[in-house]
Amino acid sequence: MHAIDKKDSTYLYRQVFDLIGENIASGTLRPGDRLPSLRRMSLSAGVSIPTVRQAYIELERQRRIESRPQSGFYVRHVACNDIVHPAPSSSGEPVCLNCRPLMVRVYDGINQPDLVPLGIANPTLAKPAAKTLHRSMKRVMSRAEERSLGYASTIGEPALRRQIAYHYLDSIGVQVEPEQIAITNGGQEALLLALTAVASPGDVVAVETPTYHGLLELIDSLGMLAVEVETCPEEGVVLGELRRTLEQHPVKACIFSTTLSNPLGVTMPESDRRKLVQILEEFDTVLIEDDVYGDLRFDGVRPVPAQFLGSNARIITCGSFSKTAAPGYRIGWLVTDVFMDTVMRLKRAFSCSSGLLQQLTLADFLASGDFTRHLKMLRPVLKCNAERMSAMVADHFPAETRISKPVGGSVLWLELPANIEAEDLFDDAIEAGISITPGQIFSPSNRYSNFVRLSYGHPWSDKTEDAMRWLGRRVGELAT
Amino acid sequence: MHAIDKKDSTYLYRQVFDLIGENIASGTLRPGDRLPSLRRMSLSAGVSIPTVRQAYIELERQRRIESRPQSGFYVRHVACNDIVHPAPSSSGEPVCLNCRPLMVRVYDGINQPDLVPLGIANPTLAKPAAKTLHRSMKRVMSRAEERSLGYASTIGEPALRRQIAYHYLDSIGVQVEPEQIAITNGGQEALLLALTAVASPGDVVAVETPTYHGLLELIDSLGMLAVEVETCPEEGVVLGELRRTLEQHPVKACIFSTTLSNPLGVTMPESDRRKLVQILEEFDTVLIEDDVYGDLRFDGVRPVPAQFLGSNARIITCGSFSKTAAPGYRIGWLVTDVFMDTVMRLKRAFSCSSGLLQQLTLADFLASGDFTRHLKMLRPVLKCNAERMSAMVADHFPAETRISKPVGGSVLWLELPANIEAEDLFDDAIEAGISITPGQIFSPSNRYSNFVRLSYGHPWSDKTEDAMRWLGRRVGELAT
Repeated sequence: MHAIDKKDSTYLYRQVFDLIGENIASGTLRPGDRLPSLRRMSLSAGVSIPTVRQAYIELERQRRIESRPQSGFYVRHVACNDIVHPAPSSSGEPVCLNCRPLMVRVYDGINQPDLVPLGIANPTLAKPAAKTLHRSMKRVMSRAEERSLGYASTIGEPALRRQIAYHYLDSIGVQVEPEQIAITNGGQEALLLALTAVASPGDVVAVETPTYHGLLELIDSLGMLAVEVETCPEEGVVLGELRRTLEQHPVKACIFSTTLSNPLGVTMPESDRRKLVQILEEFDTVLIEDDVYGDLRFDGVRPVPAQFLGSNARIITCGSFSKTAAPGYRIGWLVTDVFMDTVMRLKRAFSCSSGLLQQLTLADFLASGDFTRHLKMLRPVLKCNAERMSAMVADHFPAETRISKPVGGSVLWLELPANIEAEDLFDDAIEAGISITPGQIFSPSNRYSNFVRLSYGHPWSDKTEDAMRWLGRRVGELAT
Repeated sequence: MHAIDKKDSTYLYRQVFDLIGENIASGTLRPGDRLPSLRRMSLSAGVSIPTVRQAYIELERQRRIESRPQSGFYVRHVACNDIVHPAPSSSGEPVCLNCRPLMVRVYDGINQPDLVPLGIANPTLAKPAAKTLHRSMKRVMSRAEERSLGYASTIGEPALRRQIAYHYLDSIGVQVEPEQIAITNGGQEALLLALTAVASPGDVVAVETPTYHGLLELIDSLGMLAVEVETCPEEGVVLGELRRTLEQHPVKACIFSTTLSNPLGVTMPESDRRKLVQILEEFDTVLIEDDVYGDLRFDGVRPVPAQFLGSNARIITCGSFSKTAAPGYRIGWLVTDVFMDTVMRLKRAFSCSSGLLQQLTLADFLASGDFTRHLKMLRPVLKCNAERMSAMVADHFPAETRISKPVGGSVLWLELPANIEAEDLFDDAIEAGISITPGQIFSPSNRYSNFVRLSYGHPWSDKTEDAMRWLGRRVGELAT
């Protein structure tokens, strides 16, 4: 429990909000308990009554407390929305993607204009960096003028690679050589280059389950097979299961998201990362580490990518500015040592180089400190949205709904009552002007037909709340 | 022969220059002939004497005429630098790329700073569009603000696809539906998507010879084999040879540049394009048409891509703004009907989408008319550079040097004396601060070891002339 700190740049009401929230989470305040009165809380916390009121109103808005007339505020009884459980184990055999048509329908659906965008994992919508990025870009345009229109080098602009190396040093205290960093067209091309560099058509690639659908589509497009490894919602890939998979199948590479996986939002503990590195070394299997959400932990603590734990050189880490700054810039990167020559040959053959003006702009954005400041503002917005959305699920969805407890990122993963077809819910939702992502596309083997992913990475509004209420009601109807 | 037209926006001196040049080309004025005097030409053409003098000085600078003291200007005797001849036929078998290490050396070499960039085919350097493009971008930034940072749709920004469709209508009178146009990360990704959509690892792909090295690297990276089809420097792919190749090998796709091929600069006549379309239909072979130089004919006449001649739906045309506006934007496109769904699936899997801000900027650049105006300024600069560089080859290279006669684009293709190793010349040139492209990397089968490609797509300067003189001298030394 922290005292209120008036020198902290966080809003005071938010500090009171967090204080009560932590007391509820720890069990100090239990459902039915009466909260301290506004006056009492104002005195004990040393803040004004209106500040306390604002915090209580926000807590009430999130259904964590309720006001009782003439009596005060009380901790609510919340339906038991436990963390999602792993889906029943599949056969564990390598498979081709079998949801291609659904995937196309989902993309067509969520890209329709004017939907409430719960189907799009774009955290930057929640707090756009447009002003500062535009400022950086204008600086670059006047400074670099004609040069900014030309070809970047294949490996990428040195200034940006240096800034990314500095960001690793600054955020996790790790030394990365700029020569080990290559710039790509977003995180997706980083995954493409990494996978093409280490595996061939027909090869088997191990993935978490559930896993990011764009990754499954990539594996499918390259003519490779995916094998799912059981993934625990609290600790990520189950290492025993991984070992079993590696023993049974000739896995060429694993693509795991060690920090804030999509859609589970789980972060693998450091001790497990170390073990992971060892296991893969033992089986001579490459790890492609999808780290695009690494900067988005609510607590601002950046876990160390597996590549920098131990001495296994056969790891490629993929990062991106799409989830933290500007998806439309299409600038990501990968970190590798031994695979760099191959990756460069592929990058040249597949897309020559990445956009120079965007690289120069991001280099300026990082160097000016604007990037770090932006992350500091973005994280609490995402955290607040996650809390609001979780509370609304608890309040409006059927009691047996289970829900992930992300510690960062921008998505919730929901397990709906067993008889729900998420595909049907998706269709109904699109018709009602709401996009969601049905669970099926997060697995190559048709698991998760009663799961959905909801994004809270956009500005919270009445429309969001209306959409959540609508979804809860519809799930209730479909469940009966 | 045209009369001087004072309403024409072309500089008057340039019109006089062209008038004399055409008379030399047609044989009306032959080596040794005396040119009309300044006064006489001024009267007959209806322009001032200084204008005529400027034209004559430029002709002299290009070694096409010479001044004889007290006598006047005479057409020069030029060493017989004939158009390059096709290299001796290779085995005609499908092969893997066997010049990977050289390709890496070439890229490393030409990307060194401060070289005279004769090795980089970037026509936009010759006349950068920075000012107008920056203006468009600033307009977009203030208009679209936050939206401009977001994800574009996978197929690309509708406004840009509409502008590209309009450009086809405007420049060649062809109706293309915006729905048939997909935006890509430059022309290179357009080729990647097209090729991956229609062929698989192990498949045979037919290419021109010589052909663009980036294409060979792409075919190699996808695990495919290339088979070279004889290409005539005046009319492009020899259709009889193509037929023979298709009869002998299971060719899955042809990748041909029908307009201003790289490096030959040849444009296939329309009658041949029509026959090409028929032949490929007969063999059920896909044509991937690399049309990235289509807008850069010196005469401004845009040939009609083969896709729009006849009814063969199995053609994908690839275009780009990299050669005409801004390589660093990484914006290209492809036009297809029947392959669009597959291409979209691959685009999503490989790179999600292309940069939105650049797409919006180019849409504005085209809509404002700035693109057309820019092309009108760029073409004569390239033409003038081509003439200057050709003249310098004639003047400074050994007499047996043969040279392409491009009608557009930004490169010359030179056949050097048979005993020259272009690879050695490349190494020497880099050391002397000059980048060139050795011929070997334009063929998968080690042809063209005594060929080089020189780019004139940059501002002409004394440095260029010094570099050309140095190269000519060095070739002379190596030849003896």
